[in-house]
Amino acid sequence: MSINANDFYSEIAAKMNASAIREILKLVQNPKVISLAGGMPDPNTFPVEDIKEITQKVLTENSARALQYSSTEGLPGLRRCILDNLAKDDVHGELDNIMISSGSQQGLDLVGKAFLSPGDVAIVELPSYLAALNAFKSYGCEMVGIPMDDDGMKMDVLKEKLIQLKNTGKRVKFIYTISNFQNPAGVTLSLERRKKLIELAHDFNVLIVEDNPYEKLRFEGKSIPSIYSMEKNGSVVSLGTFSKILCPGLRLAWILGNKEIIRKMAILKQATDLCTNIIGQLIAFEYCSSGKLENRINSNVNIYRKKRDVMLNALEKYFPPETSWTKPQGGFFVVASLPDYIDTEELFKEAIKENVAYVPGSPFFADGKGKNTMRLSFCYPSLEDIEEGIKRLGRVISKNLKKK
Amino acid sequence: MSINANDFYSEIAAKMNASAIREILKLVQNPKVISLAGGMPDPNTFPVEDIKEITQKVLTENSARALQYSSTEGLPGLRRCILDNLAKDDVHGELDNIMISSGSQQGLDLVGKAFLSPGDVAIVELPSYLAALNAFKSYGCEMVGIPMDDDGMKMDVLKEKLIQLKNTGKRVKFIYTISNFQNPAGVTLSLERRKKLIELAHDFNVLIVEDNPYEKLRFEGKSIPSIYSMEKNGSVVSLGTFSKILCPGLRLAWILGNKEIIRKMAILKQATDLCTNIIGQLIAFEYCSSGKLENRINSNVNIYRKKRDVMLNALEKYFPPETSWTKPQGGFFVVASLPDYIDTEELFKEAIKENVAYVPGSPFFADGKGKNTMRLSFCYPSLEDIEEGIKRLGRVISKNLKKK
Repeated sequence: MSINANDFYSEIAAKMNASAIREILKLVQNPKVISLAGGMPDPNTFPVEDIKEITQKVLTENSARALQYSSTEGLPGLRRCILDNLAKDDVHGELDNIMISSGSQQGLDLVGKAFLSPGDVAIVELPSYLAALNAFKSYGCEMVGIPMDDDGMKMDVLKEKLIQLKNTGKRVKFIYTISNFQNPAGVTLSLERRKKLIELAHDFNVLIVEDNPYEKLRFEGKSIPSIYSMEKNGSVVSLGTFSKILCPGLRLAWILGNKEIIRKMAILKQATDLCTNIIGQLIAFEYCSSGKLENRINSNVNIYRKKRDVMLNALEKYFPPETSWTKPQGGFFVVASLPDYIDTEELFKEAIKENVAYVPGSPFFADGKGKNTMRLSFCYPSLEDIEEGIKRLGRVISKNLKKK
Repeated sequence: MSINANDFYSEIAAKMNASAIREILKLVQNPKVISLAGGMPDPNTFPVEDIKEITQKVLTENSARALQYSSTEGLPGLRRCILDNLAKDDVHGELDNIMISSGSQQGLDLVGKAFLSPGDVAIVELPSYLAALNAFKSYGCEMVGIPMDDDGMKMDVLKEKLIQLKNTGKRVKFIYTISNFQNPAGVTLSLERRKKLIELAHDFNVLIVEDNPYEKLRFEGKSIPSIYSMEKNGSVVSLGTFSKILCPGLRLAWILGNKEIIRKMAILKQATDLCTNIIGQLIAFEYCSSGKLENRINSNVNIYRKKRDVMLNALEKYFPPETSWTKPQGGFFVVASLPDYIDTEELFKEAIKENVAYVPGSPFFADGKGKNTMRLSFCYPSLEDIEEGIKRLGRVISKNLKKK
């Protein structure tokens, strides 16, 4: 007589279900399918030979440390290296302002754990990163979405919502923004709006969680100071990662914030996974210290810029005039909008038949809208596959347009 | 004007404070101090040369995969390898019964996340693993402790407590046991009690969480079937780890359980850290496939047995007759009990002056007792340091005995 697992789940676990995307993407295992779905970096951007060499060095000179438990906050040398790199972008902090996390997803989980009690509100962009929404949801919060335009989150709507929420007695803990080349939309929060966001955060006594994985992958235009660098009261928690500039396989990211908050997060992390793998930290430390990271990022930017160009040109060429899409200046993603009457989850089945995959937009929208949108990634597929994938997708969309 | 971080914490984060031990152990940085405190494996047990060789192979043959994101459930080949090894101990399961976690601490965190809502009860041993207590606490549960003797948790007391809790309308979600060479006490749950535990779990419709990191580190005596292998209704979640048989630096462990529960845990893990570092999984997979693990474990058992012997002999020689201690048949730890009037947190300050450290017992006790106990680890220090450390500690204790 088997137990009924449902008898045992926590209230929140009972509500956490496999994402539609996760299930959908299992369909993409077929090698004939060109996937514009995943957010995986191009393996050609990984410095394999350097990592091989460094790993040998680390295991030869430092094995007793590299294979042992390590501190929860992370390797001091690596944190120092990250701070030194950030200082070039006018981000300043001390060792106690930064800790290592096991990928930025753990940063998001710790943000949820640190700040969200059931019923608290997290404000997010419409659309926003799906796995961040899931992390926050796993702490029982309510999510309120703010629409975006080409300059990012709309500050007038944000202010209105903050007033509204305050009046209804709801406690907003933080505003979550992916400030550069947003996932999924590809848009960047403008300088003016960053200033306004900080002002609103102060006025309403809420934190800002700045998720910033793509900042260094700018293809053109002038970089904008990070919200973290502009804010002076310690209201910003900023997440950065090696996943997009070195490789995701080491599961290495960092959290920046005021010292009290970082200390609290270290206490929480200790109960979560004790420490991040130290061999990866030693490898990243050696790589950063070698001074090679900057050149590597520059050459990676060239790879991704070309891919973005191919995707935008293909969209121009193959997508029908009834559609529109974002034009990212960096990052990995484009969001395309189709006519309202097309549901991209339905369309997905047809796309798969034509051997092309994307991510339907709706799960990225905290308000459940965006059914006519799709996320298209140019990071992983080859230039040829991007062109061919968009061509196939254009055909599928065209077939589904209503005759005028 | 800096923000007040306390304004923003979740209810549970507000209650999570740095453990006394964590703070205390910072004092142990002094190289003159012999530490019997930490639970770190002896680096001499790490197969450094094999790991070096394998890592080169993995990065040469499989870099695009080794440095990329990977699946949340973990590398199928590695899970299969673990299952094949477990089958020798009569543990049987399919691929969907096992997932990889980022160390067993993540397993404990996911157990908390999956099962514990605020107010739910987790039953634990008195004493129990501190970081497990913290993981469960971080989900707002109530912890109820059951005393142990040389055969582990007392089943008569457990039954009584289960009845009592049921009568007061409390929902017990699981009973947490470290079944072999318990941390901190070093005791092993007897076969008879394992049977009884399963019977009680079924009668009261509660799960058993079997934490089993030390099973393979048995120095003598016959191994006892795991609770997971004995139970047939899917009521047991079992945690195993590479940290004590290979090395902790890769942060690799596994969770066994019924398929529904493993699927739910994978959904929760995805929101927690997306995936465990794949390079470590590929290394562990190659190492396990090489067939070297069994020999390695055997030679490690010899290393730890010798250390245990030295510690037990030194205790006999240097600890005063007013004290007693557990005699573990495996694992890393001994718990010593001093006269009731000695508080080991107070005593710690004197011990540090004598350049020896241990972990005070009280934080391991969910009921706040055990103030006269201490955990002594023989895993990390050298044979000489174990002898000398116990000698110093014996002197400190003797000085604090009341004159008769």
